[in-house]
Amino acid sequence: VDSGSLRLYRWYYSRICQWGLGLTIAVVLALAFVEKPSSITYTSDPRFRPDPWEPPCGLTEAIELICLCIFTLDVAAKSYLIGWDEFCINKWLIGYVLIIAASVIDWAITVSMLCHETIRVRRLIRPFFLLQNSSLMKKTLKCIKRTLPEIASVILLLALHLCLFTMVGMLIFPRSEDKEKNGEWEAYFRNLPRALSSLLVLLTTANNPDVMVPAYSLHRGYSIFFILFSVCGTYILMNLLTAIIYNQFRGYLLLSVQTSIIRRRLGIRAAFEVLCCQGPINGSSSEDHVERVHVPTLLEIMRKVKMKSYYRQAIMKAAEQVPGGFIDGEAFQRLFDELDKDIIKEHPLKPEYRSPVLQWIQKIGSHYYLTVVGNVVALANVLCISTILVLDSEKIVSQRDDYYMEVINCTFILYYLIEMVLKMIGFGWKGYLSYRNNIFDGVFTVLLLGLQISIFVTYKISYENPTPAQKGVISMWEMVRLVNMFIVFRFLRVIPEIKLMALVASTLVDLVKNLRAFAGILVVVYYVYAIIGMWLFHGAIPAPAGSSLVVEIMNSTSNFTMECGSYEQLEYWPNNFDDFASSLVLLYDVMVVNNWQVFMDAYTRYTTEWSKLYFVSWWLTSSVMWVNLFVALILENFTYKWDKSHALSVSDVERMRYET
Amino acid sequence: VDSGSLRLYRWYYSRICQWGLGLTIAVVLALAFVEKPSSITYTSDPRFRPDPWEPPCGLTEAIELICLCIFTLDVAAKSYLIGWDEFCINKWLIGYVLIIAASVIDWAITVSMLCHETIRVRRLIRPFFLLQNSSLMKKTLKCIKRTLPEIASVILLLALHLCLFTMVGMLIFPRSEDKEKNGEWEAYFRNLPRALSSLLVLLTTANNPDVMVPAYSLHRGYSIFFILFSVCGTYILMNLLTAIIYNQFRGYLLLSVQTSIIRRRLGIRAAFEVLCCQGPINGSSSEDHVERVHVPTLLEIMRKVKMKSYYRQAIMKAAEQVPGGFIDGEAFQRLFDELDKDIIKEHPLKPEYRSPVLQWIQKIGSHYYLTVVGNVVALANVLCISTILVLDSEKIVSQRDDYYMEVINCTFILYYLIEMVLKMIGFGWKGYLSYRNNIFDGVFTVLLLGLQISIFVTYKISYENPTPAQKGVISMWEMVRLVNMFIVFRFLRVIPEIKLMALVASTLVDLVKNLRAFAGILVVVYYVYAIIGMWLFHGAIPAPAGSSLVVEIMNSTSNFTMECGSYEQLEYWPNNFDDFASSLVLLYDVMVVNNWQVFMDAYTRYTTEWSKLYFVSWWLTSSVMWVNLFVALILENFTYKWDKSHALSVSDVERMRYET
Repeated sequence: VDSGSLRLYRWYYSRICQWGLGLTIAVVLALAFVEKPSSITYTSDPRFRPDPWEPPCGLTEAIELICLCIFTLDVAAKSYLIGWDEFCINKWLIGYVLIIAASVIDWAITVSMLCHETIRVRRLIRPFFLLQNSSLMKKTLKCIKRTLPEIASVILLLALHLCLFTMVGMLIFPRSEDKEKNGEWEAYFRNLPRALSSLLVLLTTANNPDVMVPAYSLHRGYSIFFILFSVCGTYILMNLLTAIIYNQFRGYLLLSVQTSIIRRRLGIRAAFEVLCCQGPINGSSSEDHVERVHVPTLLEIMRKVKMKSYYRQAIMKAAEQVPGGFIDGEAFQRLFDELDKDIIKEHPLKPEYRSPVLQWIQKIGSHYYLTVVGNVVALANVLCISTILVLDSEKIVSQRDDYYMEVINCTFILYYLIEMVLKMIGFGWKGYLSYRNNIFDGVFTVLLLGLQISIFVTYKISYENPTPAQKGVISMWEMVRLVNMFIVFRFLRVIPEIKLMALVASTLVDLVKNLRAFAGILVVVYYVYAIIGMWLFHGAIPAPAGSSLVVEIMNSTSNFTMECGSYEQLEYWPNNFDDFASSLVLLYDVMVVNNWQVFMDAYTRYTTEWSKLYFVSWWLTSSVMWVNLFVALILENFTYKWDKSHALSVSDVERMRYET
Repeated sequence: VDSGSLRLYRWYYSRICQWGLGLTIAVVLALAFVEKPSSITYTSDPRFRPDPWEPPCGLTEAIELICLCIFTLDVAAKSYLIGWDEFCINKWLIGYVLIIAASVIDWAITVSMLCHETIRVRRLIRPFFLLQNSSLMKKTLKCIKRTLPEIASVILLLALHLCLFTMVGMLIFPRSEDKEKNGEWEAYFRNLPRALSSLLVLLTTANNPDVMVPAYSLHRGYSIFFILFSVCGTYILMNLLTAIIYNQFRGYLLLSVQTSIIRRRLGIRAAFEVLCCQGPINGSSSEDHVERVHVPTLLEIMRKVKMKSYYRQAIMKAAEQVPGGFIDGEAFQRLFDELDKDIIKEHPLKPEYRSPVLQWIQKIGSHYYLTVVGNVVALANVLCISTILVLDSEKIVSQRDDYYMEVINCTFILYYLIEMVLKMIGFGWKGYLSYRNNIFDGVFTVLLLGLQISIFVTYKISYENPTPAQKGVISMWEMVRLVNMFIVFRFLRVIPEIKLMALVASTLVDLVKNLRAFAGILVVVYYVYAIIGMWLFHGAIPAPAGSSLVVEIMNSTSNFTMECGSYEQLEYWPNNFDDFASSLVLLYDVMVVNNWQVFMDAYTRYTTEWSKLYFVSWWLTSSVMWVNLFVALILENFTYKWDKSHALSVSDVERMRYET
């Protein structure tokens, strides 16, 4: 470890460098929105879609080249830092190099063909850059890989369940002589693929009563077949899958907390060794080999270390209280236990005023009742808005009388302003900002005030001319709407006031922190599937013939030619694979599962039967795998938080570590 | 404790008495199927439904009176056994008495009005009999009650989420001047109730892409609103609810196991005390007060105790090995640790044959490969059936050529028979039956053989006359169908052969055992809601006018008068509240959630807006509460089983008990 590579290491892992790398990855991934089937149109509906703005050939390619150069630098720095031997056994790094090489080759092909190539392979492999940059994601991937065999066994059981029921279904619902009794056979059990996909969709409950109705209408008994299938498949086997995935992730958080604690211990120990070996100057007689550290040295170093100032102060305070001016190993460790203590936020003292009026105002402003009254007023404001909304719901926008709403809102905003000023006087400027609640309130109040003033400036509302013509970029109604929406959001300030809700909400906030790795994997999966979907199904569904403006008329007349519940009748036109953004939305819709068979059916009709494979595999990855992972994560988070808040401290976690 | 009440106690808790009580409860509950809106019709579709058989006035009433008498005896016995003081503080028993009294009064009213009363209150309170009879269900109920406050906080958060998004939605989608851009407002955000229910249904994902389409087709950006709503509501808040419920049930199984172990310890200790105090005849000098039990006395008692013979033998064997003929307290406890050991099933020895031919057959019959070949043959048979099914899927039943299928099935059944005989010779009669797999195979083989013979007897199949006319009660095709279904079920014998699947399947079997309490509560909830539903909505939806036989024609012509996706267009007619059985199926459909808004919408249109309350409350109880409870149970079961199979033995459980 020479000082050159140490400096490189520091520089590489500095915040700015990592941010830059993250930004580069985001830019490379975001290119998919702009590249050829460009998503820059206001709608993705083929009936109304204008021709999108296509970037000129070379623009996205230039950006991509810059990003690839940065990645090359990144991989060079990384491999220099970990050394050649480590590089050769690190699969991720080798993969990184290969991916960059492949991207560059594909990029060269694109440029040489003047952007007229059919398939850009590098779009598919781009998400790899996101994966390799996050150690958390790699860890999560490993965890998922470990779970796969057990998941496979349940999926095998599901497949067996499906096949058996399909066969029984085909035996129960054959084509009978009586045409009227053929409904079930005709619609759902006509042949093997149809029967299989009917029951597969039933497994996701997406066609639940429909698939049962023709048979159930003939005889009650047939419902038993479908209920049995759903209960075994959907309720038992699917939930068993959740249980298996959760079981793998149980202790995942605890383990990672344990690992990080052990790493910190090691780091602190190493720091201690360095500090005490470095100093024969420490003045201790070199005969007694008790290793110890001179406190002023420690304090000096502490001042240079990057850490939260609250912790730094706590540790320095503890170090100063050490008697004798020297610290031995154990005390040194104990010093850093301060890091585990929760921050107890200290609010600045209230300012002291001389004037009795100001003192009186301060008494009001810092009183707890002011918050309560503020909440009640916010509720009243929201209720006012909703009342007006309900009264006006049938009116066309231009008929609405915004005057009253404006007056009411103005009054309330004035109250909010007064509340803010009162609190500021009460707690002082710094004291006011030390509460998060106040910041939340303040930001919205200022925003509302700004909006309100701009409304006055633009429209100069008066009672005589209540509905001014549209001026400027946004209309009066839209401004008022924005004000109302801000008021509604401002109402969220009541959440911390209700205790149970505060607990749940804080769990949610914690959850989001732990969610990044999962969100990253989700992004990767969505990206890959969206690109594949665009390759396979780009432009597969043509725009309807008698299109665009006469939709409603067409709707009512052509209804009986389109089957109910089909893609065309439901007008799912904007959900297609024609550009990246709409592909994402379509994939989201399939993930949510409801009515996914409509998409599957439409693409099967417009392309081939094989497109079912794509949709089923997406359903398996997103809805079955990812949603279950998400549930496991939420369960793990909640139970961890629960245990932590009830019994376990950090030392407990450590003890459990030693026990297992 | 006199001997009379002890005998009563024994008799009351004897198996036959408890079975009788269970049967009575089942009969009382089953009365709902027969009582006035009788479910005894082959279909519940108002278009085809014949007039049901109504029981004559007095029949169900007589049965009910008998059951009520039995319940009265039951409550008398119970209160006698626990004594008056205990009775006064036992809320369940007091409730039991009150419910019986109310039922009797209501019964008297019914009889006096000659069965013409409008509402039978006692139908609603009948499920109480089921609840009070199971201590497990009472415990589970208590557990649910404890969870309610936290669930309430999440539901409050959900309600807030829903209200805020409803307001924002109404602000975003007002009625605009342009009629074409009004789709979203018109269909989903017309007024407050409409907007609220649209978003409530979206929370269950039941109208997922539909609610988004009109707005999304106008502008991509609108999709963000809906996606944000779903992600926050459905994915995060709903799963948080699962986490909270699971958190309450974590350790539920462990705790109940601990409790039962402690109870057993207490019981064994008490038995020891009784045995050693009883006997100054034991021969030990009464000076040294070491309490101990004479082994022959113990053995004698063991012979009278009711327990599984395997355990009895193990304990008696251990007791006989005690040196000295006397056992002290600790050894006595240790004796019963045998109960915790798993049964290692010993299969009877193979019979020994003298004849070399029989020996040779035995060698084949007991070989492992025979099972493998048997599985392969079963698979081949299933494949044959599915091939024929696929080939014949378009044919009408009467056109199908059952001859080939018959021949193939006969061959396979012959093979199964040979396999069975071989195995019987190989393992001997008792040895054959000691494997569960063999019993499963054997039962199906015998059934198949019987069916096949009866087919031959009835139809005397020959190649010249392949499709005989229908004779007897069921047609040729139906017999063959039954054979095929049995063959498909017989194929399930492969499950234990695949290791991973065996683990999962055994978890499932265990699950079912622990499920009884939950299933009981589910029955109670379904029962109560079905009865209320029948009171509220009986006959609310009239049969369509131009009904019955010309359904298909009507379907194609009247399609454009019925809105797509409505109750009428989807022909959900058989799902109604006209009788008990169809109410149950309708409630099940709502529990599965998909398309539940169709039912809600239909009943809102035919009755009042208030019926939404009924459906929403059922959705909350069934889909939100019960399904989450079920998931929690599965998670708890699986993790418990996992821990048990990996590390914990009973002594560990005990240790954990002392630690906490």
